[in-house]
Amino acid sequence: MKFSHLDSSGAARMVDVSAKDVTVRTATARGFVRLSAECVTALRDNAVPKGDALAVARIAGIMGAKKTSDLVPMCHPIPIHGVKVDLEVTDEGVAIEAFAKTADRTGIEMEALTSVTVAALALIDMVKAVDPAAVITDVRVVEKTGGKTGTWNRPADEADEEADEAEEAEEADEADEDKDT
Amino acid sequence: MKFSHLDSSGAARMVDVSAKDVTVRTATARGFVRLSAECVTALRDNAVPKGDALAVARIAGIMGAKKTSDLVPMCHPIPIHGVKVDLEVTDEGVAIEAFAKTADRTGIEMEALTSVTVAALALIDMVKAVDPAAVITDVRVVEKTGGKTGTWNRPADEADEEADEAEEAEEADEADEDKDT
Amino acid sequence: MKFSHLDSSGAARMVDVSAKDVTVRTATARGFVRLSAECVTALRDNAVPKGDALAVARIAGIMGAKKTSDLVPMCHPIPIHGVKVDLEVTDEGVAIEAFAKTADRTGIEMEALTSVTVAALALIDMVKAVDPAAVITDVRVVEKTGGKTGTWNRPADEADEEADEAEEAEEADEADEDKDT
Amino acid sequence: MKFSHLDSSGAARMVDVSAKDVTVRTATARGFVRLSAECVTALRDNAVPKGDALAVARIAGIMGAKKTSDLVPMCHPIPIHGVKVDLEVTDEGVAIEAFAKTADRTGIEMEALTSVTVAALALIDMVKAVDPAAVITDVRVVEKTGGKTGTWNRPADEADEEADEAEEAEEADEADEDKDT
Amino acid sequence: MKFSHLDSSGAARMVDVSAKDVTVRTATARGFVRLSAECVTALRDNAVPKGDALAVARIAGIMGAKKTSDLVPMCHPIPIHGVKVDLEVTDEGVAIEAFAKTADRTGIEMEALTSVTVAALALIDMVKAVDPAAVITDVRVVEKTGGKTGTWNRPADEADEEADEAEEAEEADEADEDKDT
Amino acid sequence: MKFSHLDSSGAARMVDVSAKDVTVRTATARGFVRLSAECVTALRDNAVPKGDALAVARIAGIMGAKKTSDLVPMCHPIPIHGVKVDLEVTDEGVAIEAFAKTADRTGIEMEALTSVTVAALALIDMVKAVDPAAVITDVRVVEKTGGKTGTWNRPADEADEEADEAEEAEEADEADEDKDT
Repeated sequence: MKFSHLDSSGAARMVDVSAKDVTVRTATARGFVRLSAECVTALRDNAVPKGDALAVARIAGIMGAKKTSDLVPMCHPIPIHGVKVDLEVTDEGVAIEAFAKTADRTGIEMEALTSVTVAALALIDMVKAVDPAAVITDVRVVEKTGGKTGTWNRPADEADEEADEAEEAEEADEADEDKDT
Repeated sequence: MKFSHLDSSGAARMVDVSAKDVTVRTATARGFVRLSAECVTALRDNAVPKGDALAVARIAGIMGAKKTSDLVPMCHPIPIHGVKVDLEVTDEGVAIEAFAKTADRTGIEMEALTSVTVAALALIDMVKAVDPAAVITDVRVVEKTGGKTGTWNRPADEADEEADEAEEAEEADEADEDKDT
Repeated sequence: MKFSHLDSSGAARMVDVSAKDVTVRTATARGFVRLSAECVTALRDNAVPKGDALAVARIAGIMGAKKTSDLVPMCHPIPIHGVKVDLEVTDEGVAIEAFAKTADRTGIEMEALTSVTVAALALIDMVKAVDPAAVITDVRVVEKTGGKTGTWNRPADEADEEADEAEEAEEADEADEDKDT
Repeated sequence: MKFSHLDSSGAARMVDVSAKDVTVRTATARGFVRLSAECVTALRDNAVPKGDALAVARIAGIMGAKKTSDLVPMCHPIPIHGVKVDLEVTDEGVAIEAFAKTADRTGIEMEALTSVTVAALALIDMVKAVDPAAVITDVRVVEKTGGKTGTWNRPADEADEEADEAEEAEEADEADEDKDT
Repeated sequence: MKFSHLDSSGAARMVDVSAKDVTVRTATARGFVRLSAECVTALRDNAVPKGDALAVARIAGIMGAKKTSDLVPMCHPIPIHGVKVDLEVTDEGVAIEAFAKTADRTGIEMEALTSVTVAALALIDMVKAVDPAAVITDVRVVEKTGGKTGTWNRPADEADEEADEAEEAEEADEADEDKDT
Repeated sequence: MKFSHLDSSGAARMVDVSAKDVTVRTATARGFVRLSAECVTALRDNAVPKGDALAVARIAGIMGAKKTSDLVPMCHPIPIHGVKVDLEVTDEGVAIEAFAKTADRTGIEMEALTSVTVAALALIDMVKAVDPAAVITDVRVVEKTGGKTGTWNRPADEADEEADEAEEAEEADEADEDKDT
């Protein structure tokens, strides 16, 4: 095992990827912001401008993906060909999922992870007066595709199962909403 | 209860803090990057350039604090008068603590949280070839001081207790190291 | 008359403001994005996700204010203590108003102007597939307060009168909306 | 008609362009900064360092093109293979034209528009002490080439006709200048 | 002697300056870009657009000062209240001097040094097709004022003496130019 | 001879490189930070946290390469496929070498030069309390490969010879270190 970001003398470097193939690569990351019941109620309650707080977090997440190589020292600047950030309010807080896509020489998982964390930070900033004890948790890559190693799926864990349940609940909600429109 | 970042019509805004006092304010945030045993061993093993991976994360964390208002849409740009990022390798991964200080009109907790998350992202980028399943978890403010509301301490929770134990273990380690020097 | 940004030899410089007083200063700027009737209908029609397009523009405008000194070469980096961006859909397009506030040694009108133009660019990006002929127009400072020169109000012109009418219409709309809530 | 930046639930996203062809694409945008007669005289008069004010605006415009994806939330970061910004002083103010070129998967019209607006902001910053009432107006795309849709020319309008006249006058001036050199 | 940027365990940190006084502080830095005779002739010859190459470097230097804390990891973000960059063509290349001023809690010498180096990089970029062997040399702080330590003047060295001679020659030139105007 | 960054009227522009071939291109740049004997001793002495000061400079240099097109006005934003920064402490200070690689339409020498200068600035920031008179010197490109012009090697000069000697000494040191590990 060796750390490819480090040369033989242990010094950090940005590894050379110029010989790698340009292929379509995607990454999906997920995370969760744990909030107080009061804060979740506020986000769900129509008297509180929930839509915009989530919009700020979603837009921050997309813009955050574009700042990845500026934040992560050894990360290659890569073109980003698509980003999508979804936020879902659950009883315990807000589930965040980011999907990023590129056609380049190196993977895009750092962009997906950065997107989730920046969305989480932006959300906390919006609600911190209501809930100063918010927690960002379970931020991890759940799937990668493309490149030499091909598709990688994260072994299932508790956090993912919760997220899947949340997603199913949300899809049911969306189906309900669609009927109203 | 109302969201101060949102005006009466629900639109996001950067709240006016010009009338608040300039006082010394600090914030401490903590988080954890959960890593595989193999990855922890690599970080601890002298055959692996552990120092630099942690150095990259620490420096990224400090630089990340300075990018907070660029990442978080409604966050005020404030002068940052001091930042300190500590990383400790434990059996389960790496504990991160960031302390930030300012003398300005608004709190610095978003800077401390951003510092922890950017350090965590940078660490993951350094080890992702070894451990693609790394998880950022338990990122939260643990203490704030200064401003009108004064000192706020996070109610104790499991994550904090683990962090405290890790810190004590580390201090014992440092004491040992000091003897060797 | 002399250009304070230029020294005696005609070279651009960032003028020294260190001797100026720290006072609360505000600026309000306005602009307009002229859109096709089809595009306005789309923004107003419930079948089209109007809210988010405006949210993207509003958030971009607020974040844009924070980038002013990065974009405008001779502009001083100043703390920004509050920013508010309002967008109103009219029959001809979208009226934008930005209000910015600081407590510092120099005025904040460039931040207000930058906020309006970045909001306008973001809006055009959202609708350009529908209306490739969108036009940003009438971007100007309408009021400044604070500093040695005190309050400055822009002499009334046609664009302002249209904006005032739009604002009145909007306020009437908001009053109606308030009744519904 | 549908807004490609928005997904089915109305949430903003950065649309996936990874399947689009890499082709040479160009865009030309124009705008105008309306200035007082006194300010125009100052820019034209040799006693006033006109060259540098225009140089600041031109350089800001070129650098602004490179910041487009940082300013416009849903805009893809693309390589920029060439940018040219022209400024011409007329009796009513300064006409700005930006031309941008790329070889990538998506169009470059936002870069051209951003270039014009940032040049305009920089120009206003240079002259605002002389003319606090300057107005940015008529910022729009005039031509796009490349991509699946091929060449798009803006339908002629008054602003363009004025710009064309200004350009012809300028070309005559340049011819005169060439004789002097 | 101890390195204030490093804590007791050797880890880099941004030192706490919140207890330091807000005072007016200035710094002057100088550097030199050594160029081929052909390149110097090109810069001096009217057939070559010398003015603009120097304008690009000067403006880049001023904008570079504003990016100091973004480039230098442990550097505090401070307000910059004034920056001036002078470039003088000599027989051996271009002498650069940057003067920066702030009213804050920490010195501004890193901003002055960054301004000189960014101006030098921008100049080299403009002439590298003509002179690929350009060298940036003798970049150093020549004077600091303000703060607890007060005024610091660099002990005279050869580079400074050359710069002083260049400056005197330039002042004589400027005096001549003034007569012509 | 003509300056390709300038158009026929002398105005700066970002030259069009869209017709150039995508080829692998590399550049190596070197520079030196001259330090006092006291400062060199501190960097070498185990009582002083030398490793981290160099780590900060190295990481800053790598991140600096990614900011080149943001700092240098007419520089094209290009993907960076690999960066390596080496720092060696000598009796007179610290020698810096940066190697950068891309597969794109234009050369990467500005990135290598920027990397060296930003590493130098970061190093000075770390030691300026010990040595306020540090000097950045001899920053230049030593080799370029790729592109239409192929490989360019800098004609040997004194600074390079010194650097080569320093490098040989360092390699001997590294060999010694390897034995210890």
